[in-house]
Amino acid sequence: AEIAVLPGDGIGPEVTAAAVAVLREIADRHGHVFTYSENRIGGIAIDECGEPLPKATIDACLASDAVLLGAVGGPRWSDPQARVRPEQGLLALRARLGVFANLRPLRVHPRLAGLSPLKAENLAGVDLLFVRELTGGAYFGRKTREGDVATDECRYSVGEVERVVRRACELALSRKGRLTSVDKANVLETSRLWRATTDRVVGEYEGITLEHQLVDSMAMLLLTRPSAYDVIVTENLFGDILTDEAAALAGSLGVSPSASLGAGRLGLYEPIHGSAPDIAGQGVANPIGAILSAALLLRHSLGLELEACAVEAAVDAVLATAELTRDLGGTAGTEQVTRCVIEQLR
Amino acid sequence: AEIAVLPGDGIGPEVTAAAVAVLREIADRHGHVFTYSENRIGGIAIDECGEPLPKATIDACLASDAVLLGAVGGPRWSDPQARVRPEQGLLALRARLGVFANLRPLRVHPRLAGLSPLKAENLAGVDLLFVRELTGGAYFGRKTREGDVATDECRYSVGEVERVVRRACELALSRKGRLTSVDKANVLETSRLWRATTDRVVGEYEGITLEHQLVDSMAMLLLTRPSAYDVIVTENLFGDILTDEAAALAGSLGVSPSASLGAGRLGLYEPIHGSAPDIAGQGVANPIGAILSAALLLRHSLGLELEACAVEAAVDAVLATAELTRDLGGTAGTEQVTRCVIEQLR
Ligand SMILES: CC(C)[C@H](C(=O)O)[C@@H](O)C(=O)O
Ligand SMILES: CC(C)[C@H](C(=O)O)[C@@H](O)C(=O)O
Repeated sequence: AEIAVLPGDGIGPEVTAAAVAVLREIADRHGHVFTYSENRIGGIAIDECGEPLPKATIDACLASDAVLLGAVGGPRWSDPQARVRPEQGLLALRARLGVFANLRPLRVHPRLAGLSPLKAENLAGVDLLFVRELTGGAYFGRKTREGDVATDECRYSVGEVERVVRRACELALSRKGRLTSVDKANVLETSRLWRATTDRVVGEYEGITLEHQLVDSMAMLLLTRPSAYDVIVTENLFGDILTDEAAALAGSLGVSPSASLGAGRLGLYEPIHGSAPDIAGQGVANPIGAILSAALLLRHSLGLELEACAVEAAVDAVLATAELTRDLGGTAGTEQVTRCVIEQLR
Repeated sequence: AEIAVLPGDGIGPEVTAAAVAVLREIADRHGHVFTYSENRIGGIAIDECGEPLPKATIDACLASDAVLLGAVGGPRWSDPQARVRPEQGLLALRARLGVFANLRPLRVHPRLAGLSPLKAENLAGVDLLFVRELTGGAYFGRKTREGDVATDECRYSVGEVERVVRRACELALSRKGRLTSVDKANVLETSRLWRATTDRVVGEYEGITLEHQLVDSMAMLLLTRPSAYDVIVTENLFGDILTDEAAALAGSLGVSPSASLGAGRLGLYEPIHGSAPDIAGQGVANPIGAILSAALLLRHSLGLELEACAVEAAVDAVLATAELTRDLGGTAGTEQVTRCVIEQLR
């Protein structure tokens, strides 16, 4: 299998290197041949090619079976009013790959519960899977600036809602069968279309319990009853906000992976943390988010469920017993944690 | 002064009655003459007049010095696809009154800290004031439905941003002087206009420290470092989500008030809780959110700062020592808590 690696900016190169080391070990042990191509995206692509997503990167991704991304952005390119910005590369890549479903699983390892701002009793039993629509909504709608008025259009078609809700249904069926759809149907027309479409699509499946929540209520419920939810599906911008809230609730951004999937097998995998420019290049970044993203890559793009589980079990063992990185209260560096994961694979 | 009372649905009538009882006591003790008119809004207005905001209600509000609202909505009118819905009445009222700045103060009374999902150490020192833009954005932009495509337009003019940011600056100056503006400037054009305008407006004031946060980061920071913020200003939809998240963090929706202010003195005051149809009519609703909203009414629409402080001090005393309502773990009813507040005023 061919894997396009896009290290990006900040700690991106360090954490993707860790994930690739784990993938190499998996290939060795299970007799697979993975080949890797390294490609530019984000700030480094702006610096070296003048654009955040060079054509060569797009071509390499489209010719691959999966894309593993680090992070994009940093203070050098942080002016939101600038014409060319690192995150444009990420948004354009999502659109070009057609990865409309962004999966963010969220569980809290017992050893990390102490890092959460939530009381232990509120955190107990949390096991969430967010499915965020990733290629529609206000992110990709028409934007205008005329005189002193700006607009952003949020736009959804029935087909765009259908495909992401179907994906959420399939995932719910492989879990507890509970689906929560989040919208703002008391105010937004796109949300009313979202809700009606969701009702219809879910009706085609057996064994799914569907609940609708308004986005403001959901922002509350994530804090008061996070363990009451299973799969949560929502549109792009609401998903952006709620998944970050949920990540904070878990106590550490460093350990959470994400998978962005489309109609085919090609997927985009990245840790949910950012480029963390303040600690870049120091060898102290937490590699676990990237390593667990590689596990999702094995599962969803390569169909290697056993191998994915092996990586997840190794990470679980490391989280339970090994010295961890600074963000988790430990003193280990990126390489030490990565070595521990690889040892656990053996 | 003339006060338009809009009880609305569910527990709305019970909590506005409590707030009016407190206002009557204040008027008596301080020698003011307040007159009250009762008007329909929301579900009850749909039932009795066929529309959620009858013209008579608008006229009464516009002829008053302040509007005190309970809550709107309930299961009888909860279909988001229905043509006429209770919350349309609330949205139309906000627009008609031109109350563009929605203030939601958030503090956690020590006795209630135990109700918060957050650990005590994360909650310590939280003292937030949200200023949410209330009459613009996707709430009031053009909505379309053509074939199987729906759109919502989010729209902001420089003037709309200026006036709410000015209000936030004035409030920040009366507090710790720290202002956090929340947007999604890395994706939305309206956010880029918001950010540039905010930079310029804040530059006109001395003594304000301005920080920008992206809405997804802010959703995290509210959990991890809530005490680091003072005044938070943001657009309508982000404000809807973040203020509910913040309310959940405080542990109880029942005690939080809100004030919606425009260019003149006329303001709209309402507790942030909803109509709670499950407990309506039982005499157990928590009146404190409505009573504290009445305090904001005294302060912002009637200019009675002393009287506002008296109500707030009485509520503080009740929260510290009295039997509270069920939502706060007590056994008292609405009337008992209201009587306690009135006694504390004496
Ligand atoms: C960098 C930014 C454009 C991006 C988004 O808003 O989607 C990020 O916040 C994310 O969640 O992946
Ligand atoms: C009822 C609803 C339309 C309203 C809003 O979204 O503004 C409510 O959630 C609020 O925050 O006051």
